[in-house]
Amino acid sequence: MMSNCIIAQSGGPTSVINSSVAGLVASNLKYKIYDKVYAGLNGVEGILNEKIFDISACKEDDLNTFKFTPSSGLGSCRYKLKDFKEDESEYKKLIEICKKYDITSFFYIGGNDSMDTVAKLSAYAEKNSLAIKFIGIPKTIDNDLPITDHTPGFGSAAKFISTVALETYLDASVYKNNGIFILETMGRDTGWLAASACLAKLNGQPVVDFIYLPEIEFDTDKFLKEIKERFNKNNQVYIVVSEGIKNSSGRFISELTAYQSHDSFGHSQLGGVGTVLKNLIIEEGITKRVKCLELGVLQRSAMHCASQLDIDEAFKVGYDALKHSLDNYSGCMVAIKRDSNNPYSSSSIFVKAKDVANHVKYVPKNWINSQCNGVTTEMEEYIAPLIEGIPNMVYENSLPKFKVFNK
Amino acid sequence: MMSNCIIAQSGGPTSVINSSVAGLVASNLKYKIYDKVYAGLNGVEGILNEKIFDISACKEDDLNTFKFTPSSGLGSCRYKLKDFKEDESEYKKLIEICKKYDITSFFYIGGNDSMDTVAKLSAYAEKNSLAIKFIGIPKTIDNDLPITDHTPGFGSAAKFISTVALETYLDASVYKNNGIFILETMGRDTGWLAASACLAKLNGQPVVDFIYLPEIEFDTDKFLKEIKERFNKNNQVYIVVSEGIKNSSGRFISELTAYQSHDSFGHSQLGGVGTVLKNLIIEEGITKRVKCLELGVLQRSAMHCASQLDIDEAFKVGYDALKHSLDNYSGCMVAIKRDSNNPYSSSSIFVKAKDVANHVKYVPKNWINSQCNGVTTEMEEYIAPLIEGIPNMVYENSLPKFKVFNK
Repeated sequence: MMSNCIIAQSGGPTSVINSSVAGLVASNLKYKIYDKVYAGLNGVEGILNEKIFDISACKEDDLNTFKFTPSSGLGSCRYKLKDFKEDESEYKKLIEICKKYDITSFFYIGGNDSMDTVAKLSAYAEKNSLAIKFIGIPKTIDNDLPITDHTPGFGSAAKFISTVALETYLDASVYKNNGIFILETMGRDTGWLAASACLAKLNGQPVVDFIYLPEIEFDTDKFLKEIKERFNKNNQVYIVVSEGIKNSSGRFISELTAYQSHDSFGHSQLGGVGTVLKNLIIEEGITKRVKCLELGVLQRSAMHCASQLDIDEAFKVGYDALKHSLDNYSGCMVAIKRDSNNPYSSSSIFVKAKDVANHVKYVPKNWINSQCNGVTTEMEEYIAPLIEGIPNMVYENSLPKFKVFNK
Repeated sequence: MMSNCIIAQSGGPTSVINSSVAGLVASNLKYKIYDKVYAGLNGVEGILNEKIFDISACKEDDLNTFKFTPSSGLGSCRYKLKDFKEDESEYKKLIEICKKYDITSFFYIGGNDSMDTVAKLSAYAEKNSLAIKFIGIPKTIDNDLPITDHTPGFGSAAKFISTVALETYLDASVYKNNGIFILETMGRDTGWLAASACLAKLNGQPVVDFIYLPEIEFDTDKFLKEIKERFNKNNQVYIVVSEGIKNSSGRFISELTAYQSHDSFGHSQLGGVGTVLKNLIIEEGITKRVKCLELGVLQRSAMHCASQLDIDEAFKVGYDALKHSLDNYSGCMVAIKRDSNNPYSSSSIFVKAKDVANHVKYVPKNWINSQCNGVTTEMEEYIAPLIEGIPNMVYENSLPKFKVFNK
């Protein structure tokens, strides 16, 4: 008699996080490894409260719509398990629930913090000789997980960012007396998202003048000098900036004015760096025509502009996680290995979740240009294949049709 | 021997303003009314400086790409002609240039202010018995032109707004402890854009809780009361607000804190009402989890999410403007008449530009719900057909391929 498995989602959503769930369910339909695929609502937080349902019993139609639905459709949480050496009560409870539902494999879709959860749970299971495997499935638009070539979710965010960079560049170009446009992307620690705007091109030429990344110490004087020069030359400047740029003291530029708050992991909540730069430009007297656009949650939820390759890869990491789940991969995360760039191909590999957890993959210094205000062709070649393909989404009354399980 | 015509664009851009130019050029290819179709760069401002080229000589491929390119690809201006009774020097210069290029029809794509220009120029030509016709072609995402059923550009903006309302609603729903989401649309005087979010539905149910329109006096106490009640009931509220909402003294709510400036027509430049509402909610102690997203120029440039019907209608008003330009329509604007709603069909009619100019079409009071915080099914039925169809855009490396003439 077969046992069951469970899948849940954690951390910030992406456009394609549900594609991984769809892939996992499809994989079990093909390989028939488990009797049922359960889904937990709101990550470990919901599972601890037995918010569990049989997602493998869902209609094929619903699962296909779910594959093209953005944002954690199983709900999410930002729940950090305590170290089990300090307090194992939640571990015990989780194991108890798994036993109750005859769950022998536990799949967790998430980023850094979620891989920490996978590593802790598998270590606890191993220590206590429990027959439950814990396997991580990556997602994050930030693309900041180490080892994996890139993360599902990044390609679609990169596609949205480069698409709207192109469109808003045109919008910012219509008058004779144009001004300065600032596009603010997410990216607290890393500049992958901001960098993706390098793909935006008109007549084969990049439309973005400058890209400022958190990996490079932000120098206000240098910034104002290069903006002024470019504006005087072209009567127009298009800037892309990552929310996480910092000054030489390591302070976020956005903190110079923005309202401060912190999430439950102690990460500071940013936003507003575009407005800070706008005010700097105006105060310097370069021009008063400065517009700022903060993409906010659009960049992680714009399924209507997703990359088919990203959807396919998100599906595949879920598919392969289940397919190989009887092998000795507890405590591992499925990672993506780029096998070739032209034509692009990739495959799944399993890596230790603890090697992923709480580490950050920064933009390599040699992918940043020598003026430290843009990226190199290596970056362009790295991102370009990840945005490929127009998804064949489900529409209803000309709007995307979505399916979620958490409402 | 045939004479020539000229087309130019004015005012704020839309996603489909270039489709009207493509339609006009296609119409001349079909009806061969003019020898050449000239295009003026940056509206009358550029024409006065002889920034003119033969757009009918362009390659078919380029014109097709142009049809799917957002933002005024001929460049735009915000140039208000003086009354010719006060100063006719610019009128004389424009007529001189038209004579030089043997131009007998002048097409101007724009909104309120541009129709004012069309009305003035045609009145001047009539008064001086000049054989030049001036014909207006409508565009504005605001949908605030009278007489015409709707304006080209509105359908695509409405589609983008309703699509991202749906996507960001899902993003705002992933946690157990959800907050309040505020989507800020454009719409200085009218609520058409904000209203379009009523189309966003999940499982057939609208996702937007409240829509606040400029047509309704904004009452802070009532607002806080209804937000509090809904939040206590659902642990989540999704709000759409038009930038132009005003209080009982007629002051913009955004002016309560926002930086003030004015454009060259004396319109105040708004933005930031979402942040004002956010602060009101936080100060009232309803919740601290309030996110605000200002769509800004995305809603008028997101061709990647345009409505095919909107593109077709923008094309058709350009097409019909030229087709009927030998008739007695100087001083007129092509308007759209809705012939039937289900199935939707429309036709072009010609209306006096001066009846359009400087008038505003507000959302009718009986299309606003009795609580004054949303819209009725009449509004939904009015907008729904306008967002129909997924455009068959031109792509290059999985990004939209665009063609403009002003760079």
